[in-house]
Amino acid sequence: MSQTIRVAVAGATGRMGREVVKMVLEDSALELVAAIATSSGPVDAGTLVGKADTGVLVSSSLADALSTSRADVLVDFTNPKSAMPNTVTALAHGVRPVIGTTGFTPEQIVELDKQCREQGIGGLIAPNFSIGAILMMKFSAMAAKYFPHVEIIEYHGDQKLDAPSGTSIKTAEWISEARQELRQGNPNEEEVLEGARGGYYNGFRIHSVRLPGVFAQQEVVFGAFGQTLKIRHDSYDRAGYMPGVNTAIKKIMNVTGMIYGFEHFLD
Amino acid sequence: MSQTIRVAVAGATGRMGREVVKMVLEDSALELVAAIATSSGPVDAGTLVGKADTGVLVSSSLADALSTSRADVLVDFTNPKSAMPNTVTALAHGVRPVIGTTGFTPEQIVELDKQCREQGIGGLIAPNFSIGAILMMKFSAMAAKYFPHVEIIEYHGDQKLDAPSGTSIKTAEWISEARQELRQGNPNEEEVLEGARGGYYNGFRIHSVRLPGVFAQQEVVFGAFGQTLKIRHDSYDRAGYMPGVNTAIKKIMNVTGMIYGFEHFLD
Amino acid sequence: MSQTIRVAVAGATGRMGREVVKMVLEDSALELVAAIATSSGPVDAGTLVGKADTGVLVSSSLADALSTSRADVLVDFTNPKSAMPNTVTALAHGVRPVIGTTGFTPEQIVELDKQCREQGIGGLIAPNFSIGAILMMKFSAMAAKYFPHVEIIEYHGDQKLDAPSGTSIKTAEWISEARQELRQGNPNEEEVLEGARGGYYNGFRIHSVRLPGVFAQQEVVFGAFGQTLKIRHDSYDRAGYMPGVNTAIKKIMNVTGMIYGFEHFLD
Amino acid sequence: MSQTIRVAVAGATGRMGREVVKMVLEDSALELVAAIATSSGPVDAGTLVGKADTGVLVSSSLADALSTSRADVLVDFTNPKSAMPNTVTALAHGVRPVIGTTGFTPEQIVELDKQCREQGIGGLIAPNFSIGAILMMKFSAMAAKYFPHVEIIEYHGDQKLDAPSGTSIKTAEWISEARQELRQGNPNEEEVLEGARGGYYNGFRIHSVRLPGVFAQQEVVFGAFGQTLKIRHDSYDRAGYMPGVNTAIKKIMNVTGMIYGFEHFLD
Repeated sequence: MSQTIRVAVAGATGRMGREVVKMVLEDSALELVAAIATSSGPVDAGTLVGKADTGVLVSSSLADALSTSRADVLVDFTNPKSAMPNTVTALAHGVRPVIGTTGFTPEQIVELDKQCREQGIGGLIAPNFSIGAILMMKFSAMAAKYFPHVEIIEYHGDQKLDAPSGTSIKTAEWISEARQELRQGNPNEEEVLEGARGGYYNGFRIHSVRLPGVFAQQEVVFGAFGQTLKIRHDSYDRAGYMPGVNTAIKKIMNVTGMIYGFEHFLD
Repeated sequence: MSQTIRVAVAGATGRMGREVVKMVLEDSALELVAAIATSSGPVDAGTLVGKADTGVLVSSSLADALSTSRADVLVDFTNPKSAMPNTVTALAHGVRPVIGTTGFTPEQIVELDKQCREQGIGGLIAPNFSIGAILMMKFSAMAAKYFPHVEIIEYHGDQKLDAPSGTSIKTAEWISEARQELRQGNPNEEEVLEGARGGYYNGFRIHSVRLPGVFAQQEVVFGAFGQTLKIRHDSYDRAGYMPGVNTAIKKIMNVTGMIYGFEHFLD
Repeated sequence: MSQTIRVAVAGATGRMGREVVKMVLEDSALELVAAIATSSGPVDAGTLVGKADTGVLVSSSLADALSTSRADVLVDFTNPKSAMPNTVTALAHGVRPVIGTTGFTPEQIVELDKQCREQGIGGLIAPNFSIGAILMMKFSAMAAKYFPHVEIIEYHGDQKLDAPSGTSIKTAEWISEARQELRQGNPNEEEVLEGARGGYYNGFRIHSVRLPGVFAQQEVVFGAFGQTLKIRHDSYDRAGYMPGVNTAIKKIMNVTGMIYGFEHFLD
Repeated sequence: MSQTIRVAVAGATGRMGREVVKMVLEDSALELVAAIATSSGPVDAGTLVGKADTGVLVSSSLADALSTSRADVLVDFTNPKSAMPNTVTALAHGVRPVIGTTGFTPEQIVELDKQCREQGIGGLIAPNFSIGAILMMKFSAMAAKYFPHVEIIEYHGDQKLDAPSGTSIKTAEWISEARQELRQGNPNEEEVLEGARGGYYNGFRIHSVRLPGVFAQQEVVFGAFGQTLKIRHDSYDRAGYMPGVNTAIKKIMNVTGMIYGFEHFLD
């Protein structure tokens, strides 16, 4: 591709948004053309991420930013409330949305797909941009076909509120779709300590470990006669999601319609 | 030590008993002089374990076997019901008991200690002969002093009835004694799947994984700012306990009184 | 399938052969109809594996055994020297060969494929029947496409003669075919201890650990910005290969031609 | 301790120095009283680490800074060339040195110990402040007494120049001192790929994995009949060393003489 892709970033002052700004600035195939954040004063986007000035000031109006910047792609890491209107605004300007926020209803996705097709452009809504996490889920589903006995152990920081993690539940769904129905374990099993056997999901168990020092890790363990197979993904920081976002920005240029789930960009 | 130690084995036809018979036959510093099992006909102890005849027939009376064999040590892997009378019988014959069965009360241990001292000999009651498992527990207690944030994940075969395992509870006790009081995790934590956070023990969590193909494994994970420390013991079969039983047979010759816990034989 | 599959086992007295005999006896969909071993006297095949008599005596002539037993499938775990003539004999009797021995040349495989097709039956030559090991290799190749930075660490017993293992080299081949060309690591890297960086294979490294207590384990580790992905297979004993052999016996009934590699039976 | 400890930081603008400045500012039991760096202009130490102004300007003269600041402790993360004169300067001002730099000769340490004792104060020179790494080394040495068969696998970023790591060599030394002499492995072992078996150290092997995404990890694996014991330390960033530096600052107040190795501060 000889031309650079022009990228706008919404939520640019957030933790993920800054990583995106940095990643875009570091890839010569991409050009940062707008940075949007509701709460920040007019600061240069380079300053946000400890880099040289870029000439792109953080602005508070997405519509204005898209009108003037001629962006090809909008990357949005805002919040569930803003993501839908931002996506609509992007499509209205013919800008391809790459959305890393959850909370869209199936009806909204259908509607956004229709708008994408009317514009003849592509869009992506993805709860998880980690290539490693998606491969882990994909391999787990493939393995479950041959090794139906499985448990998931996921590790996150000790201040996380919900257990088990969204990724582990997603993994469990994929495994359930792939494997034969099975209720694992001894039917007469007894918990001496309540909860020791973990959370029950469709015949198997998910265990949530919460410890300081851990960012996000997950191990899927399959057991069969005389062997175990383990698939483990360790995520050490937010930067680990950037290769996925980078891939999405480039691939979105060549698709039409709204895609749900980054896994569709891995062949 | 120039003389061989004369060993009797009670519960010789059981799964652990056979391993003990085999281990004794393979160590030239030890001599098998008696094998006791209530339920078996008069078969040579060598035959039991797929080895050449030893001249030692399996007998059903412990008292008779100890009277005639001049054993130095009795290794007992029978069951909670037989272990106490067997220990008393051994001491009455001046034979040092090495007992791998649980279920003794503190009062019984005090009484057996008294009998040992009257005879001027040593004895050992040990729920776990695995050197590796004991080191894991010991290191975990040591680490807990510096890294109070900890969780235990233990793995056993999928037909095991109780969860968590005895070893994991023992480990949890040792950790609790060593570390400062601490209730880990976010106080507002919520379980989307009940039990996901594992069994609660004195401020931290124990997770029990049950899968076919696994014999006995345990990982103790400590988390602190920017780091994790893991201590993991994987046991692949019963033979892994034999180095511990071998050590016990040799060390018991030089102690007086009834010792509880194999860890006292590791310096 | 309402009819049982009639199975002959060559190399029945070997370590793998016994596992096959046991596995066949334990699956009601299979029937043991012949057991062949050159070196053994006429013993019942059940006795070999500590089971009740089967009425099948171990015989020393493969041709005779196949003539009289009307076997559907011959499972052969002999040795590279015997495997080729055994396969030819099986095909001459219209018996489907399932061969777990290495050492066939490409020319031999082409020739055997021709013979299979003339008979209208299937055959399989597979260096590795471990479903888990094959999934590990397959997932590794898939991951290498996205994560080109990889190293392999394999663990075997401390008396193994060759390093690295055949499985690790096979894995390395699959990875190499899948990933972009890449010479990993710092070009100015220096080994303070020679060999510390492991064996070099096509741009990346293989490390061979040899320890007592380990049967066969392998971990493939991918590293990328902010994350690692690990695929690990732990094999605890020979019995772990039996689900693969079992699958092969059943699937071979429905194919024509000689197949090389058990991975073709995993969809 | 009711009084805060007054801390000066040399090498304050370096990667470790900044972490120390931040850690001191965040602990109310410590007070930052001086920050020294040769190359930097007069900037507030708080600015260096993205915090509010502290009133402490980074100065270029250690002697001046110690004269005016009445520091109790000097933390030095400079370089091997500066560390010795800095330590001498600190002692001349009656300031306790806590030195995280390597390169001192045994003679220098003897001389510095003498100077400490003349001043009646303590000092520490420590190549590694990671409590987790030191526990890993300590446990490894303890385990080696019972499990003499061991290998070390260490993981670092793919741009690291030397292999194996300093920590792995230190671990190997500790293991060698603790265990019986032993040359592991099959004497007739052959490397199909040269280097596959890793670097040889006193009878056992060290393997160095280099991958992007990894900061510093090490696993020490012990193998014995039927079991493995693993001790693993994963370090995710420099901040993980700060609890050790913090402990050192506090403990150094109560010792006399120059101590070599942070392990002496762990009981």
